[in-house]
Parts: sequence; structure tokens; C-alpha cells
Amino acid sequence: MSLFDRNPALTALFADHGADLACEEQLPLADIRGALESGTMVLLGNPAHTGLRPLLIGQPARVKVNANIGTSPFQNHVPCEMRKLETALAAGADTVMDLSIAGDLTAIRAAMLAACPAPLGTVPLYAVAQTYIDRGDDPAAMDPEVLFREIERQAEQGVDFMTVHCGLTRRGAEWAAHGERTMGIVSRGGSILARWMLRNDKENPLLTGFDRLLDIARAHNVTLSLGDGLRPGAGSDAGDAAQWEEVITLGRLARRALEAGVQCMIEGPGHVCMAEVEAQIRGIKKLTHGAPLYVLGPLVTDIAPGWDHIAGAIGGALAVRAGADFLCYLTPAEHLTLPGEADVRTGVMASRVAAQAGENALGRPAARAAEAAMGRARKALDWDAMREVSLDPAEMDERRKPHRHEDACAMCGNFCAVKMLRD
Amino acid sequence: MSLFDRNPALTALFADHGADLACEEQLPLADIRGALESGTMVLLGNPAHTGLRPLLIGQPARVKVNANIGTSPFQNHVPCEMRKLETALAAGADTVMDLSIAGDLTAIRAAMLAACPAPLGTVPLYAVAQTYIDRGDDPAAMDPEVLFREIERQAEQGVDFMTVHCGLTRRGAEWAAHGERTMGIVSRGGSILARWMLRNDKENPLLTGFDRLLDIARAHNVTLSLGDGLRPGAGSDAGDAAQWEEVITLGRLARRALEAGVQCMIEGPGHVCMAEVEAQIRGIKKLTHGAPLYVLGPLVTDIAPGWDHIAGAIGGALAVRAGADFLCYLTPAEHLTLPGEADVRTGVMASRVAAQAGENALGRPAARAAEAAMGRARKALDWDAMREVSLDPAEMDERRKPHRHEDACAMCGNFCAVKMLRD
Repeated sequence: MSLFDRNPALTALFADHGADLACEEQLPLADIRGALESGTMVLLGNPAHTGLRPLLIGQPARVKVNANIGTSPFQNHVPCEMRKLETALAAGADTVMDLSIAGDLTAIRAAMLAACPAPLGTVPLYAVAQTYIDRGDDPAAMDPEVLFREIERQAEQGVDFMTVHCGLTRRGAEWAAHGERTMGIVSRGGSILARWMLRNDKENPLLTGFDRLLDIARAHNVTLSLGDGLRPGAGSDAGDAAQWEEVITLGRLARRALEAGVQCMIEGPGHVCMAEVEAQIRGIKKLTHGAPLYVLGPLVTDIAPGWDHIAGAIGGALAVRAGADFLCYLTPAEHLTLPGEADVRTGVMASRVAAQAGENALGRPAARAAEAAMGRARKALDWDAMREVSLDPAEMDERRKPHRHEDACAMCGNFCAVKMLRD
Repeated sequence: MSLFDRNPALTALFADHGADLACEEQLPLADIRGALESGTMVLLGNPAHTGLRPLLIGQPARVKVNANIGTSPFQNHVPCEMRKLETALAAGADTVMDLSIAGDLTAIRAAMLAACPAPLGTVPLYAVAQTYIDRGDDPAAMDPEVLFREIERQAEQGVDFMTVHCGLTRRGAEWAAHGERTMGIVSRGGSILARWMLRNDKENPLLTGFDRLLDIARAHNVTLSLGDGLRPGAGSDAGDAAQWEEVITLGRLARRALEAGVQCMIEGPGHVCMAEVEAQIRGIKKLTHGAPLYVLGPLVTDIAPGWDHIAGAIGGALAVRAGADFLCYLTPAEHLTLPGEADVRTGVMASRVAAQAGENALGRPAARAAEAAMGRARKALDWDAMREVSLDPAEMDERRKPHRHEDACAMCGNFCAVKMLRD
């Protein structure tokens, strides 16, 4: 039995949207179907998410960009997060994750699902841990039953993909927490689960209960984003035994998911020195059988707080070239505070630049065609044509405004090199 | 005779500042001297530049960052450019180039030299071409004698390095202007000289008069920045015959300069697809005998106007890792308009992130030590220590302001993964 035989929700989604998606991605429908069946591509879309435009993730489909938003205890203002949602979509984010950890999380999620035609992702563990932290309890006291019920509730609500840190084993957690790492565990979900395992002397409930998770995911075509609870939080921690222990487990779980009719992606690093990005991406892709890889950065330097979107764009471009399929944005606020609306826009654009740079290097036809069109437009000093093919026409308009009637740009004026040789 | 024997100004500069520079760069004095003699490092410093802090460029010395500022016909306001100078230096620019093309250029340059303790660079051809363009004449009518007198005047004023497009031959110009390039010639200096050569049916005066240029440069220890008039202006133009024709000539001129006691750098691309950055950098380095390489970007995608600082940071990081020594910033205004003060700051920071990422990948001790210190500070949630080692403490302060008394960052609060496992 194939993935489609086991997953009727996916079959219906593909029947309704496959042809449009094939056209949009400029890929043969049969190739997409084959990639979905082999697990190297996923089709995001929970039938309960009203108004959703389903989305393919997995090269050679276009590389996608995710924006994280959501409340925090220090900045808990729902209208503000709703505006960030709009900003992210307007800037070209392909998906949004609601990482809220303050307020009425179920209501926030419902509002975001209603307002978001793009696939919406969550980390259900946050909602559960929040209830413990809010009342002063230790999330290590969490009842796994509550976690599974929360996952089911979110699936019923229409969440399209969920980060679940199923690959984190006790062995991995101990290696990372008590080993030679600089930063130990930096994933919030990873550290909550590690704390739970060490306190309760039990294995990760998301791992022991993986089959139950698969049943929920399959029923709603929720794509599992298998989280990297042990991702490196410092460049020096990348590629250690704890990280690979988790990746190996994620690869086994990805196989089990596919056999059970559930789509999944793999989450990846994190903080990685440029010299190691390619090895990381290729290593993870190999061990996880080519499942779509969703990376956070990677951040190629740790000393750029305030500019992590740039450190992340450098790593992201290298990662795309090496095979990553899905970039989670980093904003200038990373490591410091919650992003504001301008930060959200900056983060999305930085990731889109990285994706385009990587796809251009890979020679993807759509990426190459856009580059060629820009060259022609520039040679002709045709600002409308430049605008049309640029990643951010609104930014071009804004900056050109005072000089929009000039044929040359306002940097060079009559010194324009293109004009100089054309005349 | 060695470089030092032929260049007394350099000898005096090295005697006065060599020990301090060795300490600052954490390199043995003898290694620096050897690198200068072999032309793989340069020591910027014109004795006429009062208040100058001389600067070494050339790996394994720290990779340096340049900021371009200067007036244009559309935005000709000197106090504004002087503020950009301050902004660039405050953001950590190692050098500044005055690319003014409007107003009293000699006076602007004098003011900038007086206000700038960092080495200042120029493109003397701009000042000459401007006089023709301003009175409605064709710069192709330029008298080469006027150009050499301008170069001498700027050297006497104290300019520390000058871009001179000596490697542009008639053959190269014809290939680039009339060949199969998407963008032809995009260097302003390159296009003026190409126009001059094609109209006057003569060879490039900066090439035929190279010995005269060397005499001027040697007398003032002006470092020649051998310009890449045929740098690719579209990714698809990178690596064509016209570009390599010029690089080959630049390599021969670099040898002649060194033998004549003149220091020089090589300018590099430009628009280059990620897949070709390493080949470009290594190819140029080889053909130019390891002379310090000063790159503009490279821009790894052409479709990101408004975000070219990010496209340039991706290329810059790859270039540093492949051997580039000196990054010319790109700002968000590139290809659109003159940068404002905020753009200058953004451009410098983007290049500094790229330099650090590349040097970290190369395992440079100072870069690695900074990364390690940040990891330790983060693990300890020690915000003062993080601030101290970060590339931009001011930005951290600004973003932390509302929550500066919290031990965790305002993104996670009590959800802090580091706190979670520490308690």
C-alpha cells in the first residue's frame, strides 16, 4: 500500500490541487506524486483549515520560507501578532508558525488559522508546557496524556504541520545536557522533554507514543515536522554525537511515518560554521532518506545578535545549495527579544534572498529565468521590468520614489555605466 | 632591491607602526614584513594623511571592510556625507572611499581626509570625468594629462588608496561592450575608459602611462587598487573571456608595481552565482600572485534590489573563505539610490557579519575565540559578556532596553531552554 492508499485526506487534497500545484511548481504531476510517495516531498494541508492554499515542500519544488510569530509573556498582544501574520504573508512567507506561549492559545490559533491562507504550523508541546509554567508548576510534571490530547485538538482545529521532538532519546538528552557541549540543549521543546525524561526516569513520550501520534496525523493529514531538540546552539556544538544520535532516530521515524501513511519533514540546525554546513545538510538528508529538510538558519556566526537574519541568510543559502528544502526565517530580534513587524518583514526577505541564491546556484529553471530577466531589464534601464522580477517590488518603489522619473538610478545619474556605453 | 628599499614612505610607516600592527593582528612582525615584500599584504597609509591609523590588508591579517560614501548629482549635501563617514566608522568600517561626483570634490576630499582616521580611498577618474559631464562635454574627450595631474593632486592631499582601471585593454573593452554579455560594462570607471578608447582609437591611458602612475604612487605610498572595469554586472556575465582578459593584465601589472616599489590590491567581482564564487576568487588570486583581493559583494543573486546587502553578505562570506581579503560593502540602496545613514550602518554590519563568518570557517584564531566567548556567555546568560564579544553592542542594547533587567531574553522568558536545563 502506498502513502496515498493509507492517507485518504492527502489523496483528496492531491486530487483537488495536484494539477494546479504542478503548474505552479513547473513540475510534471507524476514526478510530484512519485516524490510524495517516496517521502522526499510533502503536501501541506489539513482539510479542517478553511481557505487554505495547499503547499508542496521538497526540492525540486521551489524552496519555501517560514515565518515564526506568536505571543510571549513579555509581549502578549494578539492584534500585534495578527498584524505580523499579515506582514509575513505580504513579504512572501510561504508558511507561518504560531509559537505563542502567552494568552488564550486555542483562540489565538483559531484566529490565525482563519486569517492565514498559507499552511500554519505549531509546536503543541508549548501549549501544554505553558499551562504548567503559568501556574508555577514544573513542565517536567506534564502528563503525556494531556500532550496527546492537545495534539489531537490542534489537528482538529486545522493546523497543517506540527513540530514534534520525537527523535530526542534519553541517551541523546544525557549526552547533550551532561556532555562536552558549550550550550547543551537550546531547543525549547527539546529542553522541556529532556527535563521531563531526566526527572521522571522515562523515555520521551513522543517517541514511545509515536504510533498514537501517527494515527492523529494521518486522520487530518497533519505533516509531522520531526523536531531537532538537540540541534547545536553554538557553532562548536554542531556535528557532535548527541546531534547525530537524534538524526539517526529521526531517519527511522521518518520511515515509520511514511509506512503508516503520514507525511513528515525533518528539522535541522541551528548554529553551524560555514565550513560544516554542507556536511551537515548532506549527512542529515542521507540519514533521513531525503525527507524534506526544514532548517533554522543555519547561523554561520554566533557573535551577530541584532544581525542574525544575515548570519542565517548566509547559512541558509549554503544549505539550499546542499539540499535543504525549507528555510525558517531568523529576524534581527533573534536571541534578544520578540520580533516587531519590521523585523518580520526583514526576516522573510533575508530568507527569500537566501533561497533564491541557493536555487540559482542549483540552476533551477525558475530561479535562472528570474536572474536572466533582471539582467535584460537592467541593460534596458527598464524599471517596470526590474520591478516585476524583483523579490521586493514594494521596497524598490519606496526607494525610487524621489527619482522615479529618471531613467538612470539616483546613485550614478549621468555617470550611469549602462548609459555611458549605450549612447 | 626589495619593496622597502624602493619605497621610503612605506619603510618609515612600517618602522613607526609595524610593532603595533603586529600586536593588533596577532601576527609575527617578520611574517607581516615578508607578506608585504611578496605583495600578498599591503600597508595602507599616505604620509600626507594627518591623523591616520595605518591598516594592513591581506589574509591572514583580519579581513577588512570598506564603506563607499560621497555626493551624487541627485543628492549633493556635504554635511550629510560627513555624517555617513562618522556612521561608517562607528559601525566598524576599516576604510572609507569617497566616491563623490557632485560639488567641490577637492574640498569634500580634504574634509573627509581630516575627519577620517581610517585610510581613505578614491577613484580619481570620477573627478576628471565630472568636469566634462558638468559642462555638457563627453568624458571621451578627456585629456589623459588632466587625469594624471588629478591623481598627483589627490596623492598630495593624502589619499591612501586609489582605484585605477589600468587592466582594461581595448581588446577587453571591445569583447565586453560588443560581445555576448547581458550587461556589457557596469563599472563607471570602466565604461568611461572604454568609451574613451573606442572614440579615440587609442589604448587605455592608465595602462600606457602605468610607469608614470607608479612614480606618483611610490612617492606618497599610495596603494593602487587595480580596478576591475570589466567585472560582471550580471551573474550570467561572470567568468567570461573579457573578465579574465582583464584579470590576466592586472596580474602582470601587480608584478610590475611590486618591482617598482608600489603596493597594490586587486579589485574583484561583482555579480557572481554562488556556484562560481570560489572558482572566481581562487582564479583571480592565482593570476594576480596572491595580491590582496578587494571584492564588491559578490552578489549571488541579481533580483534582490533593496536587499543587496544580504545578497552581498552571502557572496562575501564565501569569498572570504576562498581567500578574499577586503570586502566593499553593499547597502540596501545599491542599484537604486544613494544610501542614507541607516543604510551605511546596515551595509557595514552586513559585511562584518560576512567577514566573521568566513574567518570563522577558515579557523582564524581571533574569529574562533570570539565565537567561543559568545557560547560561554550565552550558556551563563551573561548579557554583559555577550555584549562585549558581539559585533554590534549598540544594537543589542537598543533591543534589550525594555527588558534589560531580565536574565532570559524577551523571546522566551521562562520558556528559556538554557534556564530550563540549568535549574
